This record gives sequence, C-alpha cells and structure tokens, in this order.
Amino acid sequence: MLLKQGRKLLFIGDSVTDCDRAKPHGEGLFQALGNGYVSIIDAFLQSTYPELGIRVVNKGISGNTVRDLKERWEEDVITQNPDWLSIMIGINDVWRQFDSPLMKEKHVYIEEYNETLTELVKKTKPITDKIVLMTPFYIEPNIEDAMRHTMDQYGAVVKNVANDHDCIFVNTQDAFNKILESLYPASIAWDRVHPNKTGHTVLAKSFLDAINFDWQK
Amino acid sequence: MLLKQGRKLLFIGDSVTDCDRAKPHGEGLFQALGNGYVSIIDAFLQSTYPELGIRVVNKGISGNTVRDLKERWEEDVITQNPDWLSIMIGINDVWRQFDSPLMKEKHVYIEEYNETLTELVKKTKPITDKIVLMTPFYIEPNIEDAMRHTMDQYGAVVKNVANDHDCIFVNTQDAFNKILESLYPASIAWDRVHPNKTGHTVLAKSFLDAINFDWQK
Amino acid sequence: MLLKQGRKLLFIGDSVTDCDRAKPHGEGLFQALGNGYVSIIDAFLQSTYPELGIRVVNKGISGNTVRDLKERWEEDVITQNPDWLSIMIGINDVWRQFDSPLMKEKHVYIEEYNETLTELVKKTKPITDKIVLMTPFYIEPNIEDAMRHTMDQYGAVVKNVANDHDCIFVNTQDAFNKILESLYPASIAWDRVHPNKTGHTVLAKSFLDAINFDWQK
Amino acid sequence: MLLKQGRKLLFIGDSVTDCDRAKPHGEGLFQALGNGYVSIIDAFLQSTYPELGIRVVNKGISGNTVRDLKERWEEDVITQNPDWLSIMIGINDVWRQFDSPLMKEKHVYIEEYNETLTELVKKTKPITDKIVLMTPFYIEPNIEDAMRHTMDQYGAVVKNVANDHDCIFVNTQDAFNKILESLYPASIAWDRVHPNKTGHTVLAKSFLDAINFDWQK
Amino acid sequence: MLLKQGRKLLFIGDSVTDCDRAKPHGEGLFQALGNGYVSIIDAFLQSTYPELGIRVVNKGISGNTVRDLKERWEEDVITQNPDWLSIMIGINDVWRQFDSPLMKEKHVYIEEYNETLTELVKKTKPITDKIVLMTPFYIEPNIEDAMRHTMDQYGAVVKNVANDHDCIFVNTQDAFNKILESLYPASIAWDRVHPNKTGHTVLAKSFLDAINFDWQK
Amino acid sequence: MLLKQGRKLLFIGDSVTDCDRAKPHGEGLFQALGNGYVSIIDAFLQSTYPELGIRVVNKGISGNTVRDLKERWEEDVITQNPDWLSIMIGINDVWRQFDSPLMKEKHVYIEEYNETLTELVKKTKPITDKIVLMTPFYIEPNIEDAMRHTMDQYGAVVKNVANDHDCIFVNTQDAFNKILESLYPASIAWDRVHPNKTGHTVLAKSFLDAINFDWQK
Amino acid sequence: MLLKQGRKLLFIGDSVTDCDRAKPHGEGLFQALGNGYVSIIDAFLQSTYPELGIRVVNKGISGNTVRDLKERWEEDVITQNPDWLSIMIGINDVWRQFDSPLMKEKHVYIEEYNETLTELVKKTKPITDKIVLMTPFYIEPNIEDAMRHTMDQYGAVVKNVANDHDCIFVNTQDAFNKILESLYPASIAWDRVHPNKTGHTVLAKSFLDAINFDWQK
Amino acid sequence: MLLKQGRKLLFIGDSVTDCDRAKPHGEGLFQALGNGYVSIIDAFLQSTYPELGIRVVNKGISGNTVRDLKERWEEDVITQNPDWLSIMIGINDVWRQFDSPLMKEKHVYIEEYNETLTELVKKTKPITDKIVLMTPFYIEPNIEDAMRHTMDQYGAVVKNVANDHDCIFVNTQDAFNKILESLYPASIAWDRVHPNKTGHTVLAKSFLDAINFDWQK
Repeated sequence: MLLKQGRKLLFIGDSVTDCDRAKPHGEGLFQALGNGYVSIIDAFLQSTYPELGIRVVNKGISGNTVRDLKERWEEDVITQNPDWLSIMIGINDVWRQFDSPLMKEKHVYIEEYNETLTELVKKTKPITDKIVLMTPFYIEPNIEDAMRHTMDQYGAVVKNVANDHDCIFVNTQDAFNKILESLYPASIAWDRVHPNKTGHTVLAKSFLDAINFDWQK
Repeated sequence: MLLKQGRKLLFIGDSVTDCDRAKPHGEGLFQALGNGYVSIIDAFLQSTYPELGIRVVNKGISGNTVRDLKERWEEDVITQNPDWLSIMIGINDVWRQFDSPLMKEKHVYIEEYNETLTELVKKTKPITDKIVLMTPFYIEPNIEDAMRHTMDQYGAVVKNVANDHDCIFVNTQDAFNKILESLYPASIAWDRVHPNKTGHTVLAKSFLDAINFDWQK
Repeated sequence: MLLKQGRKLLFIGDSVTDCDRAKPHGEGLFQALGNGYVSIIDAFLQSTYPELGIRVVNKGISGNTVRDLKERWEEDVITQNPDWLSIMIGINDVWRQFDSPLMKEKHVYIEEYNETLTELVKKTKPITDKIVLMTPFYIEPNIEDAMRHTMDQYGAVVKNVANDHDCIFVNTQDAFNKILESLYPASIAWDRVHPNKTGHTVLAKSFLDAINFDWQK
Repeated sequence: MLLKQGRKLLFIGDSVTDCDRAKPHGEGLFQALGNGYVSIIDAFLQSTYPELGIRVVNKGISGNTVRDLKERWEEDVITQNPDWLSIMIGINDVWRQFDSPLMKEKHVYIEEYNETLTELVKKTKPITDKIVLMTPFYIEPNIEDAMRHTMDQYGAVVKNVANDHDCIFVNTQDAFNKILESLYPASIAWDRVHPNKTGHTVLAKSFLDAINFDWQK
Repeated sequence: MLLKQGRKLLFIGDSVTDCDRAKPHGEGLFQALGNGYVSIIDAFLQSTYPELGIRVVNKGISGNTVRDLKERWEEDVITQNPDWLSIMIGINDVWRQFDSPLMKEKHVYIEEYNETLTELVKKTKPITDKIVLMTPFYIEPNIEDAMRHTMDQYGAVVKNVANDHDCIFVNTQDAFNKILESLYPASIAWDRVHPNKTGHTVLAKSFLDAINFDWQK
Repeated sequence: MLLKQGRKLLFIGDSVTDCDRAKPHGEGLFQALGNGYVSIIDAFLQSTYPELGIRVVNKGISGNTVRDLKERWEEDVITQNPDWLSIMIGINDVWRQFDSPLMKEKHVYIEEYNETLTELVKKTKPITDKIVLMTPFYIEPNIEDAMRHTMDQYGAVVKNVANDHDCIFVNTQDAFNKILESLYPASIAWDRVHPNKTGHTVLAKSFLDAINFDWQK
Repeated sequence: MLLKQGRKLLFIGDSVTDCDRAKPHGEGLFQALGNGYVSIIDAFLQSTYPELGIRVVNKGISGNTVRDLKERWEEDVITQNPDWLSIMIGINDVWRQFDSPLMKEKHVYIEEYNETLTELVKKTKPITDKIVLMTPFYIEPNIEDAMRHTMDQYGAVVKNVANDHDCIFVNTQDAFNKILESLYPASIAWDRVHPNKTGHTVLAKSFLDAINFDWQK
Repeated sequence: MLLKQGRKLLFIGDSVTDCDRAKPHGEGLFQALGNGYVSIIDAFLQSTYPELGIRVVNKGISGNTVRDLKERWEEDVITQNPDWLSIMIGINDVWRQFDSPLMKEKHVYIEEYNETLTELVKKTKPITDKIVLMTPFYIEPNIEDAMRHTMDQYGAVVKNVANDHDCIFVNTQDAFNKILESLYPASIAWDRVHPNKTGHTVLAKSFLDAINFDWQK
C-alpha cells in the first residue's frame, strides 16, 4: 500500500465527504469521521493495517463548492499539516446551476472551478507527500442528461489537474457507472447525489484500490 | 365549471395527495387538507366560488399503491359518499420496482394495476356524479429512462380506464413535460417524485382546467 | 404579463408576507419563500412562465409596521436591487391601537404611516422598474367596526400614494369583501388577520390579476 | 353566600371551561382546575371562605357542544354527585356553523340545543341543590354580526331554561358587553371566543356575584 | 379607587412577582404579566375599570434579593417612568440564610435590607405618585419557627419604611395568617413560599383592598 | 451484619423509596434502584460486602399509601420471594389530609393504616427471614405542627406493629430530629418530605445501623 | 463467491447484529439494516455483485441470548424462508454472568447454550442452503480474564456445532485477536463488547472471507 | 475528624469528579455537587456533622487532564480560597494514550504529569490547611494489562508527590482492587473507568477514612 507508517490523511469536500462528521474537527472518538466513505476508508485502514497508525481526518462541509474550499484552505488544510490530502469537490458547483438556476451568484462555472482547484493543488503539493483527486459524480446513467453532461465536464477538469500535477486520480463517476448497469439510481441515492451505504462503499473501494490497498492482507 | 352547488369532492392517492393531511379524516380547520395540490384546488374553489359551498376531502396516504387503495376503499371512499372522486395512484406501484428491486412482494405490476384500478372505478361509478382520473408521473424528461418509461405505461392504463368508463382524464405527465422544457427536474423535485410548491401548482392547474374552472371569474 | 424575462421581484411586509420564510434571506430551496401569498405567486409564475426566470424574494417580517420597514429599508430593499417591489404594510400599525391600547409607543398613527410610506416609495421608485402597493386589510365585513374603519383609512392612504407615484395598486380589502358576502370571517381567519390558504389565495390572485398574469397560458 | 359548608361544585362546558385542566379528573393539586374562570372562582372561594371547605371540580372539555355533554353526562356529572352544578355550553354549537359551514354534521342547531340542555337540566335538578346556567357568549360588540346574532339566540334559550327550571342564571354576554364599551375585542380575545385573563375574570365575577359572594368579607 | 385615569403601575420583586412573565419586558399580549398576583391585579383592574386605561408592568425576577433590585433599579424602575410602584422583596434575603446556611455571601442581613430598601424608596418617591410596599411572607403558622421569626422582622422593617416615607403598606403575612387558621400550609404552597392560585389571590386582594378597589362596581 | 450470604432484600414504599427507579422491576443495571436511600444502602452493601452477593430490589411507587401497598402486595412482594423485606409507608396517608383536605376519599386514617400494615406484616412474616419497619417522617422540628403531630402518631403505630411482630424497627423521625438541631428543614427538603442527598443518607445510615452494618470492615 | 443469484441471506443475533435496524422488519430503504457489520456486508455485496440481487435481512435484537432466539425462531427465521442464515449469539449469555452476577435467572450457562444452539441449527439446516455460525467475542486480549475465558468456551461450542452440522464457521475472536496485537481494546470498543466501525469491519471482513467474497472483482 | 468547624473543602478533577455538577460553580441547591463521590462525601459530612458547617465545592470537569487543571487553576482553585483541597486527576492523561493512540497531542506523558502536579501542589500548599491527593485508577484487575500498568505508574507519581509535600494520600486503586477480588469489572463500570454508585461509594469511603471520619458518631 502506498500509505506508510504514521501518515496523516486528510479528506476535504462537500456533504458526501461530511456525512455528519464532528465539528469543528473531524477526528477522534464517537463517530467523529461521520458515516460516509471517509469512515469506511478509515475502518478498513485501521482493521487491516492496525500496525501502521494511519491518522485520518475529515474536513468535509455540506454544501461546499470549490469556492468555499478556497476560503477555508488555510485553516482546514494548511495548518493541519496532512501528509496525504484527498479532495472531492464540484457537485454543488454544478448542482446549483440546475436546482437554483436563477441564483447565479451561487453558481461556480467551469473556468472558476478549474482555476481554483489548480491553485489549491499547486499551493499544497509542495508541503504534502501526495494528493488524491476524486471526481465529482452524478448517479444518473443517461450521459445526455444536462446535469450529468456538465458533471462529466467538471470530472474531466479534475482528470487534467491530476495529470498536470502528478496526483492520484480517482474516477468516481466510472465506478458508479459500473453498478448503474445493474441498478437503477433510485436504489443508490434518492436524489442521485447523496449515496446510501452501497454508494459510499463504491467510493471507498475506488479510493482504496487507487492507493493499492491490499484486501487480502 | 362542472362542479355544482354543494358537491362533495374526495381525493384519494399516495404521498403526493397526502402531503401531511389530518388523520384519520382529511377535512376541517387547521390545514386538514395537507399542503399539496389538494389544498391548492380547495383554496381556489373556496376563494373563487365561495357561494357554491364545494366540500373537499383528502384521503391520500403516503406510500400507497393501488393495492392499498383497494384494501381501504370501502372505508375511505364508499362510506364517505362523495359526489365527485379524484384518483391519482401508481407512483409507488412503479417506484418500488426501481428503488427496492429485490423486494418483489412490494411491486404492483401493470396487469394488477390495470385490473384493480378498473375494478375500483366500476364499483364507484354508479354511486358518484363523476370520477377524475389523474395519471401518475415521474419528473424526468428522458423518455428512455427506465422508470419514466414504465410510468408512461401506467399512465396509458389510466387513459384507457378513463376512456372506457367515461371519466375525466388528467394527464399530469404531460403537464410536467411542458415545464421540463425550461426547468431541470432538480428545481421541481429533488427525488423527481415529490414536487415542491411549483410542481403541486402544475397538478392543481391541470385538475382545475379539466373541470372548466373559470380563472377570470 | 407585465413582468419581463429575468426580473427580480421582492416582497416586503409583515407576518402575512413572512409566513415562516427562511431567515435572514427569503429565497432558495426548501420553502424559503414561506407558505403565504408570496409562495403562491411564485409557484404560479414558475409553473406558467418557466421560461421567464422570474426571481422572487420574500423579505416580510412578522409584527412589522411601516416604522420597522423604514429602519431596515437600506439592507432589505435597496441593497437587494429588486426590479419590482411589492409592499403590503399597515396591519400592525392599526392593530396595536386596538389590541394594546395602552402601549401608545407601539402605535403608528395615520400621519406617520402616510409620511413614511411616501418616503419609502419616493426613495425607491427611481431605482426600480415598478412598485406594487397592496393595501392592508381586515377580514371583517362590518364597515362600522372600529378597527375595520381605521384600516379602511390606511387603505385609502395606500391608494393615494399609489396614484401620486404611479404604482400598481392592489386593493386587498376589496378582494376579501367579495368573498365575505358568502363566507363568515371565522372560516378564513380565526383572528380576522392571518388568512388560511383560501385567504392567501385571494391575495395572490389580486396581485397576479394586477400584473396581467395570463391564467390560460 | 349561597354556597354552604362542605358543598361540591362541579363545572362542565367547553374549552372556555377546560383551559388545560387535569384529565381525566379536574380536581386536586398542581393546577388541576386549569387556568380559566373555574380556577379563579375556586381561588376566591378558598381564600375568602377557607373555613367552608367548598370542593370545586372542573369537567370542561375543549370543543364540546351540548351534544357531547349529553354523551358523557352519566360519567362526568351524575356519578360525580355534585351538590351544585354550573353549565356553560353553546359556543361550539354556534361556531361550527360559521367556521366550518360545509360540515353540517358538526352543527348543533337551536332546537337540538334547547331540547338537549332542557333534558340535562331536568334529569339533574332532582339530585342537586342548585344548578347555575351560564350563557355562551361572543366577544363581538356588533349585534348585527351574524355569529353574535345567533349566539344571542342561544343565550335566550339558556335564559328560558333557567327560568323554567328555577336555575341561577348568569348572562355572560351582558358582562362582556359592558367592558366592550371601553375595550376593542382584540384586547380581550384574539379570536373573539377564548378570553385572556381579563375576560376570564369577567366570567368569574359574574358567577360569584350571582351566588352572592361577599367580596368584602 | 386611588389609581387614576392613565396611570402606569409597575411591580418589582422576586419569583412570587415574576411567575414566568415575559422577558426582558413584562408587558403586552400573550401572558406577558406572568401568572401570579400581578396578573390577577391587572385582570381585575382591566375588567372593572376598563375606562381608566391603567397600564400594568411586571419587573419581577426569580431569586432576587433587595441587593439585586438595587443593581437593576436604574434600568428596570427609573427609566420606566412608573406613576405607581409596588415593591415586594425580602423572601430570598431571608431564605438563603436557612436553605444555604454555609454560603454566607448570598445572605442579605437585616441592616443591609433596611438600608437598601430605604435608599430605593427615597430615590424613587420624588418621581412617582405613590409607592406601595408589600411585606415578604412565609406561609408557616408557627411564629416560633426560625425562618418565620426572621421573616417577621423583615416585615417589620417594611412597615417602618412605609411609615417613614408615606407609602401604602400591605401586610401580606397578616393576610396569609388569616387563612392559615383554616388551611394547612401544604394546601397553599408546598415549599411554604411559592403560593398556588389561592395564595396569589390572597396577595392580589390585599393589594386591591389597600388601594380602595371597588369590588361592587 | 445480620444479612447473610445470598439474601434478597426488597424495599417497598412511596416516592421516598421510589426515587425514579426502573419500572416495572427495580433491579439491574443502569440506575434501576433509583437515586434515593435504597441505592445508597445497596452501594454500601456491594462495596463493603462484595463477597456476600446481597440482592437488593426496589418496589417503591410515588404517591402510594398503605392502601395502595395492599393492592399490589401479591405481585410486588409475595411473588418476588424476598428473604428480607423493608417497608416505609405512611407519608401520603397523612399528607393528603393536609394538602388536599377536601378530597377525603384519598385520606387513609390511622385505624385503616394500623389494620392494613398489621395485615401485611402478618401475612408476610412466615415467608421471610426478617422484616424491617421504617417509620414515615416529616422534616419539621416543631412537634406541635399539625402534620408533624399526626405523622408522629403514625410512627407510633409502626413501632407497635414492629414490637408485636418481632420486626426490626427504624425510627427515621428520630434520625431526622437529630440533624434538625443544627439544620433548618429547607436545607434538607424544600417541601419537608422529599429529602435531598443528605436526607437520604440519614435514612440509609439508620437502616444500615439497624442491621449491624460494619462501617469499619 | 458461494452466494448465488437471487439468494436471501438472513442475519440473527444480539445488539452487535441489531445496531439500530428497522423494527419489526430489518430490510428495505432508509438504513433498515442498521449500522453494524450486517450493513457493511450488504453494501459490499450490492456494490461488488449488483447483478446477483442478493437479498439481506437483519433480525438482530439488542440484549438477546440464545434463549431469546429460540423463542422468536419460528417468526423471525422459519417464516422468513431464508436461503442462507448467519447466527452470532452468546455475548449476553456470558456477559450477564459478569455484570449482573446476582440475577441468575438471566444467565444462560454453557449446557443450555450448547443444546439450544444445536437445536436451532438442526431444525433449520434442512430448509436452508447454508448456515454460517459466527462465534461470540470479547475484545479483551488477556486470555486469563474471567469473562474472556468463558467467552472462549462458548466460542468452542460454536466451533463444535459448526463442525457437527457442516456449517461455515467464522471465528470472530481470532479476527479481533489479530488487531489487538496492535491496538488497545479501548480504541475499538469502550466496553469491550460493542465495536466501533473498525470493529464491525473486522466482523464483516471475516464473514465475507468465509464465503469467498472476491475483493478484486 | 480532621476537618474542623467552618472549613471549605474543594474537589477538582475529571469526569469522575464532575458527574454532572452545576456549571460554572459546583455548589448550592439542586444537585449542584453532581451525583458522584463528591456528593456522597458531602452527604455524609452534612448528615453526621451538621454542626460543623463544612462547605463542599465541586470543580471537576469531564475529560480534563492535569494539563487542563493547570490552565484553570487560578480561576477554579486559587480564587476560591479553599481551606482543604482534594485532587484526583490522571485518568484521561493515560486513557487518551490507549483509546486515541494516534492523536499524540492529547497525551499527557508521565514526566509532564509529575511536573505539573508537583507545581500545582507547591503553589497551593502555602495557602491551604491541607491537600488530599487521590490516585487515578483503572477498574481492571489484571496488573499486566497495558493501561492498568501505566495507570499504576501514574498512581506511584501521586504517592511520591503526596509524600514529598505532606499531603493526605488516598490510594483509590487499592480500594478498587479489594472489591475486584469478588466482583468482575463490568458490574462496577462498563468502560472500567466511570464507576456506578457502588464504585463511587468505594471512592467516598476511601476519602472519608483518610480524614478520620467517625462512622459511628
């Protein structure tokens, strides 16, 4: 596995990352990591590699866009000194364009998304071992659906940023597409955005596979 | 308007009809009609035709399928002696096939749907002035979406039953399709089923237009 | 319809406008517009003219008099940059004179009402497309009732201000008077002030008629 | 005072009597008598005539009409063996005709009211020392108001029954009329039915005066 | 009656005065006066002399001693500009000596009590029409009981202050003593301090008698 | 200590015994014994004689009189098969005579108290190792106080029953009298009946002393 | 993987299985499977083998012993017609002997445990495809700890039953022992019984490994 | 007994001391001392030596380590002017090393513990009559258990500090060890740290014995 002894791994993102984590600091006893993919990843790391002492921190906040991340980057990422950083952002950047089309001040269009994400990655790369970039996703199999189409474009931005800055890339949309061949979206997420436990396990597996987690250990 | 002086109009259906109405009897003071399309229809009838004294009753129950309606038909429809009856059912009959694919005992397939709806209409027609049949709907513009496709088939059943038994037919799916040309589903219903106030107004307008409500009166 | 593509329409007023809207800003998802006439107007605008993208904002606050509006005018109206503005105020200005006769510091008498309303209209007219003035009302059919009598005088003030400054005038008292011919006040509002859904629909229809809303579209 | 040593005085009626009394039995410690006129009467009896040991019981139930009283008369009056009985009923009998005009099964018209009240008084007179009949009331000064007009007719029924069966008669409407010369209804009861503390004191004083309570003792 | 047209009457004291009044200002609609003797006095003033428009304000705060009153005198009395002022204080000054004997910093001994009460009366007399001084009380018939004995001494202080500064004097202990001849303390107040409705009526009657209230009006 | 290995000790009584114990059965984990003297006794037995395995059960119920105990004796005592039984009852038998003097059906006078207590002791003595009788008490130092005087008479009954049937006798009134020489009642129990922790410790010590508990062990 | 297309897999047990599942039936939407190892197993089955349609049902109930399972076996297992059945029971059978040593009627000793478990397995084997037996566990590394020692004996019983009746055997104690080499019990379960998410993942992995789940699929 | 007339005794510590005491100041009526060993000690002092007027104050705060005590020492100890001071701290200093091994910033290792405790004792000795030092404890009988082993080392530090500075030393671990010979930890504290009432009584007895409390008085 790529993660080594004693590393601190920080996750940042929106409600999919947040999942009712402890505030202000998402670490410690009593479900402090929330109940989403972050907590599944932590549980597998602790139960499979208890000897490594990997420290997992959750800094997701519901409703966040990349613009919100930028605003709290200093406090919630830089001063936390993570060794590894995982970012999954973009769902709300896109969603607000579709569920609140008239409130344009809440939309984060693709140029701003690209620039801001790039800026955050560039600023943080020098002070971390590794950055993982997870795409935003939309649990909708129809690629001509307007919101899915836009989300795919944001996902492509993430891929480019990952390539350009040597980050580990996790394509969450691809992971969901695979189970959407067998399951209808409503059985994974009623609003096609907030996954149930099955959906969060899809995310956790994608992440763990990307860091070469050894399932058979 | 087709509704005459002193008539009693009863609505039956699922959560879209229910909308937190008073239980067990959905009539009277203090929001007893709930906050969905039934309450909008009532408010327009009372404010525009206060002199007619139209009595509106809501008997929707969340989660119901046509199978559930059949079970409570005697108590909730027949013994209520309505002059007019409006039925909107079928969403859960279809939805469970997609969000709970493994629990087949909860699925109501199209033959049972057709037979049961027909039976209820035939039994009730002789003892009412008029029956209104509203289609179930799915706020999804992609007609190739699996659930939308199935819902359309159930809607076609409703149309046939209405034709065969001289009921007033309200095509709610058509009504939603029109605004879906301008709006993305997420701005009307996060789960594409439970409409916000805009969506309930679409339903109420379709119903009122179908009974020749005079908006200019 | 008078409202054109992309306009922002802001409502300000007291509890009849407020109706449990989101605070501090009454706009967005999840019933942010409250459950009164503002939400009905918005639902009809969105469902009938979805292509126009009319943005509706609710800035009503329970218990407000025109004196309170003046105090928060800069923050809640001017800085919001509305294209259209609708004002319905005056009920509490009058009501406190009758339910709290001894607390005279809470009464807003007619001269102050006239002056303040005029001042607010004059200040705002140059920076908006159009202002709608809705009268306060009292759901009491007896014009000799002391509070109804006073309310009618405040309503006359509103009419004059509307005439003098070329505002759209909505006579809500007239609208209620019409249904009071058939219905007793207690069936619309237990305290003759806070309308039920039927009463709010009376208000919404009066407003929509005044801006030439096309019900048949 | 007419009430003698050791008498049990039972009050029955609707929400004005009930006022959140203890259920099922309205007697004992901890506000068991509710917070309306019954509790004021009791407090004056206990504080002025502590040596008499008058036992007060409250059997009011919110929403009751005379039809409801009849149904629970055996359990809530006869088996309680009161020495004195005070009845104030009729507000809901009238109110439902005005706030729920379409639900005619909830209206208790004047003939039924007269017959039922007479029947209850005749049945109970032989087994009590004295019956007090208090009129229903409506805190509305306009005698041409439709609901006030009807309430006055029910009040006249009470007067006749009191005369015919030698009961003590308390005209609560008269008592309210007197203060309505100085105060607007809204300062006593927002819905013109449920009095505030001032209104309940009007009721208590009328009752106590009618039984020759000695205020100077 | 001594109170004239349009006077403002302010009550200040401890929990017996407070009784769950509105905070910060104890005046207005919705039980703002609490549910103790202040609200009974107000209800009798409004119902018997509605034409006088007497304004009643409650500024009692639970747990207060005369030391606490002094601290908030400017804000809660002087700036309120009352015409009449009623003070009932001293119960906690004494009680803490008996229920918390070790926390001497919470005890207000009789010299401080005398000086502070005198100071407050002297400062306020010139700017009011009249001051009413009500004694503290203890609902304990045994005058040799240690706490009753002390309370009587504090009551004597109040009497002296009233005499020296021409205040109306209300001996609440005397009033309770009278009904304690017939009733055991536990039937009026479980802790011998916080009266039930009967006890509060004893207080209200004492006050109203002292200002020549006309019960027969 | 008199209690031997493996004995089951059951306490029955009123609210002083109950103290929020688990219902229906007062034994087991999670504060099942309540927070009164029973729990203190148990804690001392378990911490000082852990090797004995004494089983403590609490069957107190708030508000109970000896008449109530009789009614539930079969279920709550006999079928529980206790080795030792402790009874403390009588406070409510007396209290109701003083706080609810008019509700005579709730009073349990001294003859009935004596007879019922005797009957219960006689019935249970043959099937238990030992019965402990604790007197009721009143935390009032004045022996001429009417309720204290009555309580002392009930205490004398308990002493006689204990003597006649060879029960262990615990004089709780005596125990309280001793600390009342130094402390005022209000510092132990605001209503002179429900003790705070200091008062419950007085009860527990009296009981433990009576069964020869070895404090120095 | 051993589980084939369309199989129904039912879990039964105590609080470790229950984990706040839906009652009475632990299957369906909205976290119906609880938040313990059952929900993790289900999430991995659905996300990895969505095409198989494995139906998972949770019938755990907090506090249960094998004696309780026997009582509800007909209703909660037999009538559910599972294809696969997983049983994990015994923790409370042992725990009550240590946390409630005096309440012997709540202890299930090893002979009864063995007999009952055997009986349930024998009765159910003929009507299922396969039974999985998971041992109870105690998250305590010291094998000489009294409770751990007893738990190991119950685990040995499970192993024997599994061998004798050809069940799949899952040694949960072994699985925990492995991570206890690196982690102190308090970091997995404060009471050494109810695991946090890491502990439940240990259980889920043991189960999935035992049925040849393909982690790499 | 060592404690003399009128002394103030202050307890400071972590959750075992806190036990839901009043905040910010743990003294006064209404369970202000919490429900742990502090309240038991107080109850025995007040009930056995009521004439001494010993004042007990609780300043425990859940989760505190010695590092936290140092931070609030000025406010919570020095300015309180206690005559006697009892300190029981260290459980969390150790526990966090075992339940949160990765969050090293929360660990207080033994050197810091020793230094800080010594510093606090030295600073406070000159201004108090006497300091009592109670060891931290772990309700685990296995002395080879890693956390018990560490706790014993911290306990040894306490003993040394007590010896060096002439403090009264209370070995709480020894006290628990004695009952652990008969009882399994789970019957005293589910997490082996937070004692039930039996455990708190063990602590209270140890303290009272150490100050020569006379149980037979």
